[in-house]
Amino acid sequence: MQEKIINYVEHNDLIGLKNYLLELNDADISECLDDLPEEDAAVVFRLLDKDKAANVFSRMESDTQEKLVNILSDQEVGEIVNKLFIDDAVDLVSEMPANLVTRILQNTDSSKRSYINAILQYPEDSAGSLMTIEYEDVYMDMTVQDAFDRIRKTGMGKETVYIVYVLDNERHLVGLVSVRKLLLSDPEAKISDIMERKVVTINTHLDKEDVARMFDKYDYIAMPVVDSENRMVGIITIDDALDVMSEENEEDFEIMAAMSPSEDSYFKTSVWDHTKHRIVWLLVLMLSATITGTILTHYENAFASVPILVSFIPMIMDTGGNCGSQSSTMIIRGLATGEIELRDVLKVWFKEARIALLVGAILAVVNGVRIMLMYDNPLLAAVTGVTLVFTVILAKSLGCLLPMAAKKLKLDPAIMAAPLITTVVDTCSMLIYFNVAVALMNI
Amino acid sequence: MQEKIINYVEHNDLIGLKNYLLELNDADISECLDDLPEEDAAVVFRLLDKDKAANVFSRMESDTQEKLVNILSDQEVGEIVNKLFIDDAVDLVSEMPANLVTRILQNTDSSKRSYINAILQYPEDSAGSLMTIEYEDVYMDMTVQDAFDRIRKTGMGKETVYIVYVLDNERHLVGLVSVRKLLLSDPEAKISDIMERKVVTINTHLDKEDVARMFDKYDYIAMPVVDSENRMVGIITIDDALDVMSEENEEDFEIMAAMSPSEDSYFKTSVWDHTKHRIVWLLVLMLSATITGTILTHYENAFASVPILVSFIPMIMDTGGNCGSQSSTMIIRGLATGEIELRDVLKVWFKEARIALLVGAILAVVNGVRIMLMYDNPLLAAVTGVTLVFTVILAKSLGCLLPMAAKKLKLDPAIMAAPLITTVVDTCSMLIYFNVAVALMNI
Repeated sequence: MQEKIINYVEHNDLIGLKNYLLELNDADISECLDDLPEEDAAVVFRLLDKDKAANVFSRMESDTQEKLVNILSDQEVGEIVNKLFIDDAVDLVSEMPANLVTRILQNTDSSKRSYINAILQYPEDSAGSLMTIEYEDVYMDMTVQDAFDRIRKTGMGKETVYIVYVLDNERHLVGLVSVRKLLLSDPEAKISDIMERKVVTINTHLDKEDVARMFDKYDYIAMPVVDSENRMVGIITIDDALDVMSEENEEDFEIMAAMSPSEDSYFKTSVWDHTKHRIVWLLVLMLSATITGTILTHYENAFASVPILVSFIPMIMDTGGNCGSQSSTMIIRGLATGEIELRDVLKVWFKEARIALLVGAILAVVNGVRIMLMYDNPLLAAVTGVTLVFTVILAKSLGCLLPMAAKKLKLDPAIMAAPLITTVVDTCSMLIYFNVAVALMNI
Repeated sequence: MQEKIINYVEHNDLIGLKNYLLELNDADISECLDDLPEEDAAVVFRLLDKDKAANVFSRMESDTQEKLVNILSDQEVGEIVNKLFIDDAVDLVSEMPANLVTRILQNTDSSKRSYINAILQYPEDSAGSLMTIEYEDVYMDMTVQDAFDRIRKTGMGKETVYIVYVLDNERHLVGLVSVRKLLLSDPEAKISDIMERKVVTINTHLDKEDVARMFDKYDYIAMPVVDSENRMVGIITIDDALDVMSEENEEDFEIMAAMSPSEDSYFKTSVWDHTKHRIVWLLVLMLSATITGTILTHYENAFASVPILVSFIPMIMDTGGNCGSQSSTMIIRGLATGEIELRDVLKVWFKEARIALLVGAILAVVNGVRIMLMYDNPLLAAVTGVTLVFTVILAKSLGCLLPMAAKKLKLDPAIMAAPLITTVVDTCSMLIYFNVAVALMNI
């Protein structure tokens, strides 16, 4: 598809290109434009009709949007932004550098501009910042026929997805009616008689992760957003919830692997920016690991007299790290999906402790058998076995308690993932190991 | 909410309970039933009217469904299953033990049973297994008015979400019309004149992860599923795509932390089952770590003569592991979201190698400064610095190449995450460390 577009541009066959673009889906065109050089992208973009252009624009990556805004005239920018749904316009404005924001807003209709500014007032991660205001509202004393007339008149913006909201005179949300219900009802029926009065609403200040979770639970295709007085202010559609969910997941994957999260694509991020995202945690963890190193220097005598002790350091450290990261992953995800709550802390710890006891025992036995087969040294088997059991219990305890402590302190539990847990467990496991060795082996 | 329900049940106030249930949302009732003892759950469930019962039932966890099916009579089971949408009925049947499946199917209407059996033929992770057959179809020569009549007659099942599919006489998909378009069109207009002919379709055999990705890209609320001859066989709705996305993500989080994935909830999984999910990888990794241990025994002379060398083992191993898991996380996620493809392997490796060089250099300098301040030992700074640079390059190379190799071998790239990478990198980093030490320190 992309090669075909490039071919048209190179041969300057704009009529052929225009016809070809008509056959393509908006999402596919956006994806192509993201990968084209900016001059070519502008050529292609100008061939799209206004509505399609707005739709394609709203789906492009923000750096492609930025490049296009730089190339297009003030008038062209204004035409696109005026065609965007409010939530897409807000996304655009919140990702552009300040000078472009000024240019964009100067060329936007004043009513649209004031809506954009209103939504920009909401905190960045709140439901308010996600919503759009293109919804259909009706009043209780209208008939089904009135509602249809209203829908036909306003053209029913795409974002409403077939639910009409029933408001009272002060714009309080009192109910909703699906278009399906309207279609199946008598045209003379009153809205107040057919509307659904049990409405699940989202408060403007709800965190966007909780918004995604509500969509996952209730399976609605759109949900109404209300202020603290239950006045309707907008709607959120399920496709935006899907976007939030995938963004939040990617963010968690990156944080849990000791990186600063970034929304940019892998290939478009420069080597230097990748390095910046990765180096901070690596430095912190590298310097923390020196604590473990310092502990080891205290036991020089132990491994000078029993050198084989050194060879079990990797096994104990890795096993501790793996056990800790298993637990921390379960707890971090449980906290993220809402399955585990802070008040469950004792229940969780008790569960992890029992799992740790079982896991530790199995590992100690297998390890003991291996040592007996390889070295026939029961004392060594005992030292490493006891160390394993204590290390696993400690690792799994820290793995569940640290993420919950982070949550309690209003930090992101995801920072308490494998890398940090491993470093902490390393220190503790080495202390356990050499203390057990010194005690049992009388070094 | 749950306490209130328990209170009603304990006081045997079934009328009060029934009225209270009317006020609640189906998803909330399901969540309560999941947590109630089974006898109480059955009492509550029997108070729901048939449609609501089916809806509540389809949202419950599968073990709650199993318990209820065990308590309810054959007739009650039949009534529920006959009310379920096909995709929910298929989910139910594919998660129940064999004896219950027989009982469920025996009490299902024969037409519904044959649909269920047809969908069960599709591979477990395919689009076919996700779809439902409750969609609205119209023909090209119908008018808008005919289409509305048809919608009113069939009642327009919830799962269709307002898109009507246009088929030819052999049930090939030729277009689609949104209800919005129907509402805005002249009642006498022909469907063939107003339909959208560019339809993005899903093949029955597409993997369900790719299905979720298509919804993420195209933002449709439902997409048609066709067989290899473009004959319409069903639709998939966005709420099911959202479910797939969250399941697949949780699965990846668990695999990447060296656990066997499980769909059961944390608290409902027994200690023994948790242990089973975790122990296999721990044993594999523990035994693999002994390779690193064996390498260390070969260098007993080195750390016997320079004991301080031992104290840098944790720092080098942890840094290598962290660097490797950063890269493997980026690549595993990139492969999962489709951002990175197998043919990008050289581009990815070149990028990671340059990042590794930068990261390695920064870590080596900071580590060198620390060693000079603490020990004033330039030789030690050089040995650990050189080791760090090589280890980071190796870790990041393995971190990007192993997941891609897994993908190439049709394995899940997620198994090449932090735990496995760490174990492999440990072995290599210790070889590098002691070889560098022996060479530079003339041990």
